[in-house]
Amino acid sequence: MNRPELSLALVGFGHVARRFVRLLDEVADRLEFTWRVVAISTRHHGSVIDVDGIEVNRAVATVEARQSLDRLDRVPRERSGIDVIRQVADALADEAAEGRLVCIETTVLDIDRGEPAVSHVRAALEGQAHVVTANKGPAAFAYHELEALAESVDRIFFFEGAVMDGVPVFNLVRDTMPAVSVEGFRGVINSTCNFILSELERGKEFEPALAEMQARGIAEANPSLDIDGWDAAAKTAALVNVLMGSAITPHHVRRTGISEVTGIDVREAISRGRRIRLVASASRQGGKVKAQVEPEMVDRHDPLYGLEDLENALYLNTDLLGQVGIVQRSGGLTQTAYALLSDLASISARLREI
Amino acid sequence: MNRPELSLALVGFGHVARRFVRLLDEVADRLEFTWRVVAISTRHHGSVIDVDGIEVNRAVATVEARQSLDRLDRVPRERSGIDVIRQVADALADEAAEGRLVCIETTVLDIDRGEPAVSHVRAALEGQAHVVTANKGPAAFAYHELEALAESVDRIFFFEGAVMDGVPVFNLVRDTMPAVSVEGFRGVINSTCNFILSELERGKEFEPALAEMQARGIAEANPSLDIDGWDAAAKTAALVNVLMGSAITPHHVRRTGISEVTGIDVREAISRGRRIRLVASASRQGGKVKAQVEPEMVDRHDPLYGLEDLENALYLNTDLLGQVGIVQRSGGLTQTAYALLSDLASISARLREI
Repeated sequence: MNRPELSLALVGFGHVARRFVRLLDEVADRLEFTWRVVAISTRHHGSVIDVDGIEVNRAVATVEARQSLDRLDRVPRERSGIDVIRQVADALADEAAEGRLVCIETTVLDIDRGEPAVSHVRAALEGQAHVVTANKGPAAFAYHELEALAESVDRIFFFEGAVMDGVPVFNLVRDTMPAVSVEGFRGVINSTCNFILSELERGKEFEPALAEMQARGIAEANPSLDIDGWDAAAKTAALVNVLMGSAITPHHVRRTGISEVTGIDVREAISRGRRIRLVASASRQGGKVKAQVEPEMVDRHDPLYGLEDLENALYLNTDLLGQVGIVQRSGGLTQTAYALLSDLASISARLREI
Repeated sequence: MNRPELSLALVGFGHVARRFVRLLDEVADRLEFTWRVVAISTRHHGSVIDVDGIEVNRAVATVEARQSLDRLDRVPRERSGIDVIRQVADALADEAAEGRLVCIETTVLDIDRGEPAVSHVRAALEGQAHVVTANKGPAAFAYHELEALAESVDRIFFFEGAVMDGVPVFNLVRDTMPAVSVEGFRGVINSTCNFILSELERGKEFEPALAEMQARGIAEANPSLDIDGWDAAAKTAALVNVLMGSAITPHHVRRTGISEVTGIDVREAISRGRRIRLVASASRQGGKVKAQVEPEMVDRHDPLYGLEDLENALYLNTDLLGQVGIVQRSGGLTQTAYALLSDLASISARLREI
């Protein structure tokens, strides 16, 4: 198979998914696969299934005009995300069996149980579809179950976008560090909190800084997810589950957010040559993994010291390579959309090997 | 083929190659291949070929006792590295044809023409062997010729160890950033110079700092390669050739070393909140790539500001991901040996796919 055609079922069609389909078009000539979108499922704007291929621009325009996708469907009906996944997997059973059906999951993070994302991933794998998600929930709440299911049906379950957008973290370890054991990590992985702390350092106020992040689509709709450390805790749980082999959820991560941090605190830190940063970390202690998210006072010798505004960084402690860092200096929608694209390219590469 | 056996021809058997064979033993149970060493070629300690497998511990002991490997050979004779490669490729033609013969090239960098490393790589690929090298020469002087040759015989030519030891740079871009275009880079990629500058900042002298790096086996035997910027220029050329698609040699890199930098300079910089770092960089200007290595004054907002002692970092400017950094915080023989191991694992992964 030289340039496989992939059939994409988009579950979730918010900013990230819409940027993703545009990005695919923009870089089509660099990709070693072709694609068509066969389903789009949304929470508030209906759904559409067309195994012959949906006219994506029209779907984007429909949703951006706040209209329902149902009008694009030949047989419109009310369906949940799971309904859409099952219906597509049935209708495209041959393509699913050949490994050419991919579910692109981009629903919103639910911090209680990671649902409905976990169920979406499960249903897709059960239908022999590969799954790519930018949602932190599945890897944070159910990584081992879902990965075992993926292996049992010989499908890929990837989620590079869950941490640091498209900057490789999971793919970095899996693809470029064979035989290396990750013993722990430490990083700044929530952009909203880092931006707020940077603004406080510049003498700005907390609330307007948060509002700016919401306006730019970087903060979660529910601000508690960011400022109370939940987003970082979900990422931490995903990292622990995937890179360190442990099985935890975000609720096992000791967590302190930045809501108590004041401008006085951060400027007092600066006057002593330090900065306050929200640090996520994990390490093995005895047989267990200890994970936490909390504001830390870092000095200029700390590799996290220099991270401004939206910059993220993750330092992995490894046995064979010592400490290795990966740094994201630019964030935004394109970077998150790219995460989905890079995972899709991995699926296509595997297909071309067959 | 489930767990392929690879036959290794070691061309160069210095500290790195000897650490590499020990490392293979140490992590054998994590590897998805087995191996035997079928040839060892050295510049000053003879050579040995045994297609049934050389007793590696004995070879290590022989070289470390400054004796000749010829005594381990059933039919000892004087052979160059190229002679050894050709003889092994002939004797193991079947394994070479199956893609199970690998040349591990670890000779010393020659900054004039990259020889004999370039010829070693060429001879190995002509003999249908894969090539893994920690030498910067081949990618810095002849990347496009050698890569074209490798593709024409369907073999791998990898050199992760050429820049930042085993911390992924080339593999990072190739394996985890599909469809991304690298537009430029900027980094600190010579440990010896960074250590000397750090020592000068602490009030130490230049010469003892250099001597310490030589004693620890980190500086090149010829100190000019480090302090005159040649090592960084060779790495820069390799990065430009491989990541940016241009075709240059180290002699095309504008180059200023650190030999003129004094303790007064670095402490004067510190008094103004800055540091002097030897920075390697490249960017596209018009249709051409401009590459240079030179001491730069960096301030605390610069991501290279915090790099102490042996720390390296490389920041890539990309089109889809913006600026992405990879940071090496620990260096040493194990990290360089690991580079060879990670490339070997990539070869084994490709064999298992067949």
